[in-house]
Amino acid sequence: MYIFDFQKRVRYSEIDQMGYLYHGRYVDYYEIGRAEMLRALGLTYREMEEIHKVMLPVASLEMRYIRPARYDEMLTIRTTLRQFPTDKHMVFYVEVFNEAKKLVNGGRVRLVFVDMNTMRPMSPPTFFTNLLVQFFPEHASEPALGEHQP
Amino acid sequence: MYIFDFQKRVRYSEIDQMGYLYHGRYVDYYEIGRAEMLRALGLTYREMEEIHKVMLPVASLEMRYIRPARYDEMLTIRTTLRQFPTDKHMVFYVEVFNEAKKLVNGGRVRLVFVDMNTMRPMSPPTFFTNLLVQFFPEHASEPALGEHQP
Amino acid sequence: MYIFDFQKRVRYSEIDQMGYLYHGRYVDYYEIGRAEMLRALGLTYREMEEIHKVMLPVASLEMRYIRPARYDEMLTIRTTLRQFPTDKHMVFYVEVFNEAKKLVNGGRVRLVFVDMNTMRPMSPPTFFTNLLVQFFPEHASEPALGEHQP
Amino acid sequence: MYIFDFQKRVRYSEIDQMGYLYHGRYVDYYEIGRAEMLRALGLTYREMEEIHKVMLPVASLEMRYIRPARYDEMLTIRTTLRQFPTDKHMVFYVEVFNEAKKLVNGGRVRLVFVDMNTMRPMSPPTFFTNLLVQFFPEHASEPALGEHQP
Repeated sequence: MYIFDFQKRVRYSEIDQMGYLYHGRYVDYYEIGRAEMLRALGLTYREMEEIHKVMLPVASLEMRYIRPARYDEMLTIRTTLRQFPTDKHMVFYVEVFNEAKKLVNGGRVRLVFVDMNTMRPMSPPTFFTNLLVQFFPEHASEPALGEHQP
Repeated sequence: MYIFDFQKRVRYSEIDQMGYLYHGRYVDYYEIGRAEMLRALGLTYREMEEIHKVMLPVASLEMRYIRPARYDEMLTIRTTLRQFPTDKHMVFYVEVFNEAKKLVNGGRVRLVFVDMNTMRPMSPPTFFTNLLVQFFPEHASEPALGEHQP
Repeated sequence: MYIFDFQKRVRYSEIDQMGYLYHGRYVDYYEIGRAEMLRALGLTYREMEEIHKVMLPVASLEMRYIRPARYDEMLTIRTTLRQFPTDKHMVFYVEVFNEAKKLVNGGRVRLVFVDMNTMRPMSPPTFFTNLLVQFFPEHASEPALGEHQP
Repeated sequence: MYIFDFQKRVRYSEIDQMGYLYHGRYVDYYEIGRAEMLRALGLTYREMEEIHKVMLPVASLEMRYIRPARYDEMLTIRTTLRQFPTDKHMVFYVEVFNEAKKLVNGGRVRLVFVDMNTMRPMSPPTFFTNLLVQFFPEHASEPALGEHQP
């Protein structure tokens, strides 16, 4: 499991008439959480697209609004990868906490690995899964047979 | 059942690097669909808040992204109320179609009726359900017994 | 002179804590006004980029905020081209009016014609100026000399 | 003179089809620069509104777009107060730099001090100007005459 926290302040341009973070803007927060999780792994989404020619469009999302987040609050976006990606899809679980550590919003986003050369779904690329193995030790590659020989 | 269609063009400020409607902006489209559905009923959300002191915060949402919507396309936001609201919650089903009538995105949003005087959830107000009865004839009020007397 | 009016309603996602159109969102309104002015001429900005390979990035903008625009108001975006484009730059003057026909915001945007093949500024393309001649009769091409011969 | 730098990364939701920061989103960056400048002085805009009942609506803005800012770049928003506020208006000068320290965008925003009790323009409040005196020593209050007496 890989859990990553990133902080973002609620900006004036993001709030609604109630002085609360507009419900549609949480999607942007989720995206920021994922982008920063990747960066912490040593990979940027921009490199993923520009160098590796892999994109990650969103296939679906779900969110629940638990309590409002107010203007100027510093929110914590917690992004969790519960499973090692083996499929063409990958799910990020997200929780957003306010300054009092209370849950504001929770949800999940399902992304698809897409090969930008063919524009078709693809299996998770090894340059990416290699970065995740550290968090999912059970997925570390089996050593080649010969290496066990004394 | 009450089905309402509203058209909105994809604007330059709403698209992403791929030239597609940014996935987070669909939430705004859903909100526009609901607002215009209310207006078609003869009620605006602004009146609902300002005159009736009822607000409708979003409790949860789900969406699936089927195919991309491109810059400058005129999308059709189809908002459907499948059930007559009897509960403190109300669900709007949404489908977004492109100019070729293909489904671009589908989902649903659950809202809560909140009494702005107490800031607590409330049953669906009659000024609102009265407007919906025409679409849900089975919910037309039973006439009082005496009225049947010859 | 070419004056073009387009209406747009203030959406919930665009308002601030005061219930007013957020001051940053006017830039989007200006862009919508220009896009619809082009469409009324029979050209879309998307065609301009995709077919003609001409883009129009913004070089500068100025705006004054006269009075607030409220949630759900239907605003009129008035876009005016005061001068026939002869230069690599073109200026659009914009006024935004509320439902009471009062001026809400006024300003101007300067755009540059850019040749997308070379990514360099270019003179206004004739496919575009041809569409504008009707509004600037003094810029109708001089007929070739031979055509005057009886 | 008071100069304040704040960094903000260009997010996916903020870019246009070219992969550049959408020209309308700079207004949000200017707002973030001002908010953080205030916070660095020990005052938040939220406190200013909620506690002091003073708001600062935008009266006008101007910006020039020098070069594009790309997705994922860490921009520096430099906000400068050139003059000590003595008038009902206050001007913030803003420059946005990219990672190569090149100027991306420059402009200025004029705000008005508004008394939220009367909703009328007001002179700069002393709780605010007191925080600025350190940067404008020529505006430090003249000591009262008696204090110089030995």
